[in-house]
Amino acid sequence: MPVDFIALANTGVQKLQPYQPGKPIEELERELGITDIVKLASNESPLGPSPRALAAIRGQLENLHRYPDGSGYRLKAALGERLGVRASQISLGNGSNDLLELVARAWLRPDDEVVFSEHAFAVYPLVTLACSARPVAVPARDYGHDLPAMAEAITERTRIVFIANPNNPTGTWISAADLDHFLARVPKQVLVVLDEAYFEYVEESAYPDGISRLTAHPNLIVTRTFSKMYGLSGLRVGYAISSLDIAEVLNRVRQPFNCNSLALVAAEAALDDHDYLEYARDLNATGLAQVAEGLEQLQLDYIPSVGNFIAFDCGRESMPVYEALLREGVIVRPIGGYGMPNHLRVSIGLPEENERFLEALAQVLG
Amino acid sequence: MPVDFIALANTGVQKLQPYQPGKPIEELERELGITDIVKLASNESPLGPSPRALAAIRGQLENLHRYPDGSGYRLKAALGERLGVRASQISLGNGSNDLLELVARAWLRPDDEVVFSEHAFAVYPLVTLACSARPVAVPARDYGHDLPAMAEAITERTRIVFIANPNNPTGTWISAADLDHFLARVPKQVLVVLDEAYFEYVEESAYPDGISRLTAHPNLIVTRTFSKMYGLSGLRVGYAISSLDIAEVLNRVRQPFNCNSLALVAAEAALDDHDYLEYARDLNATGLAQVAEGLEQLQLDYIPSVGNFIAFDCGRESMPVYEALLREGVIVRPIGGYGMPNHLRVSIGLPEENERFLEALAQVLG
Repeated sequence: MPVDFIALANTGVQKLQPYQPGKPIEELERELGITDIVKLASNESPLGPSPRALAAIRGQLENLHRYPDGSGYRLKAALGERLGVRASQISLGNGSNDLLELVARAWLRPDDEVVFSEHAFAVYPLVTLACSARPVAVPARDYGHDLPAMAEAITERTRIVFIANPNNPTGTWISAADLDHFLARVPKQVLVVLDEAYFEYVEESAYPDGISRLTAHPNLIVTRTFSKMYGLSGLRVGYAISSLDIAEVLNRVRQPFNCNSLALVAAEAALDDHDYLEYARDLNATGLAQVAEGLEQLQLDYIPSVGNFIAFDCGRESMPVYEALLREGVIVRPIGGYGMPNHLRVSIGLPEENERFLEALAQVLG
Repeated sequence: MPVDFIALANTGVQKLQPYQPGKPIEELERELGITDIVKLASNESPLGPSPRALAAIRGQLENLHRYPDGSGYRLKAALGERLGVRASQISLGNGSNDLLELVARAWLRPDDEVVFSEHAFAVYPLVTLACSARPVAVPARDYGHDLPAMAEAITERTRIVFIANPNNPTGTWISAADLDHFLARVPKQVLVVLDEAYFEYVEESAYPDGISRLTAHPNLIVTRTFSKMYGLSGLRVGYAISSLDIAEVLNRVRQPFNCNSLALVAAEAALDDHDYLEYARDLNATGLAQVAEGLEQLQLDYIPSVGNFIAFDCGRESMPVYEALLREGVIVRPIGGYGMPNHLRVSIGLPEENERFLEALAQVLG
């Protein structure tokens, strides 16, 4: 009788359902034979990559037969200077997903508990289950993190708390006062991972910068990414800022060449592309207003968002709406897997892409 | 008192010493202010990347703000066709290192045992320890795998055996007959990972192709890479070929976007660059002979190699030789960490690079 290697895999792996990414444009082309597609499904920058990043990449192509600098010396130095931390407090990852996973792998033992919010980023339960630890999803409040309830949910078995600020896919955010109150309540030996993937988009004055909390809270790990406003999703580069001890552990567990060469140079170059970043931020603010207004005109409820996306309520099961939009050449994101079966998430695109989405939605719903 | 997060990390992580990569050219420039450096330290292709791969990369740069195709549809289809397997038997990784780690993470529980050879690739014990499992290093025979002893070392606690064929850093190889005899002895529930990172260089007629053993041995996983002969180390792309069940498990555990966009298109393009690959193979064969002859003239023992590197015996502690070579602008690889404190490993370069190495070595030793 053949051996069942699925049944022999670790307990948590048995329960794992792989992450469902946004549908790639190419895949829709293959499946439906459609062209002229607008993808607003993965919270990507509609601007394309930073021109400085592209120039840096072009300058490195002839060296691709060389392994990347496994230490990430230059990018860490640049980030350290920019963020006002030591380079040795920074850990680089193959996207910030890599860092979320590294934290789980370094500290989780089977049956440990990991606390996060209902409707929070899907990767938190995935990295937890992959370590055969127990995901503890705390019910959300108004689609956002209920921090007091999350603090209550921490037990002696809790090793990690994941917080997304702002949260994906809901676009909700946590104020400085609420974050500080929460951090003060978390036991010192419990790691708090503050996922700031959408940090650069937020313009609210009460929105906290996690890095400024690191000194007071040595159990804090802040993660950020070049996949969103920096427009480098395709290259995979994210980073964590933490205490030196935590960075030392992450460095032991990461793959020696987890960041590729082009990611390293592109991220370094994009970091200083102020014009690009400012333009991206403004474009997103305008686009958020445009999409919100369009949804209001369609009399659809949506969750106010500070990210580069909006989750809206279709008022009915959203999968048929999603599929009808696909046939119109518009890819958005169904979020039934996030416990929101009537919602869809749409990323903010260029003005004409937002318009195309709103028109297609009107047609599909009407 | 501050919490010690190093002490709180998992048991195996406590023992982890991070992988020591070959010194990057840029680092030597920084440290010693040297230019005109020859790096023969990381078994990289001296040819630079395949021109077809570079063209494919250039064609994708404007799309870097998009996430990669997480399914790797096109590259898997191309590999499947090339290798005569189903695309769904292929798993892609951020280098083959990623795949070695995924196998460990999916199946290892704390205190499980993992068998590999003394002097074998350093990543095997690293991925084992990161899962808090026990590395079991079986003494080598003539610097190569002692397969009968490895079969003997398998216990009820053994879940994985790693075999490198050819082996890095020794360049030794296992014949088809020896491999088949070994596979027949391994219990069916023990996974055998056959690491063929240097497969493309081997020209011996008795050298086995692991893929042809998959049907007879559903516990077998073959890994290969685009980092060596394909000249794409910097981009990080490797793959595994296995049964559908094993591929299903690896797909659950991998990061959703573990392969970046440029790696996917570059690998697909390089796969068909027959002229480049043939030239690379010939250049390596000539270079192996050149370096072997040079070492003989210096009366240094070396281990006959079928890879793109040679390990040679300095006849004394090798670290001072390594450091003296650095000052000559030649980077090779010390392999004391592999239990070979008197050896150095030199990668095969272009003819003039090999010559430069041999001259520097003569000077340093003489």
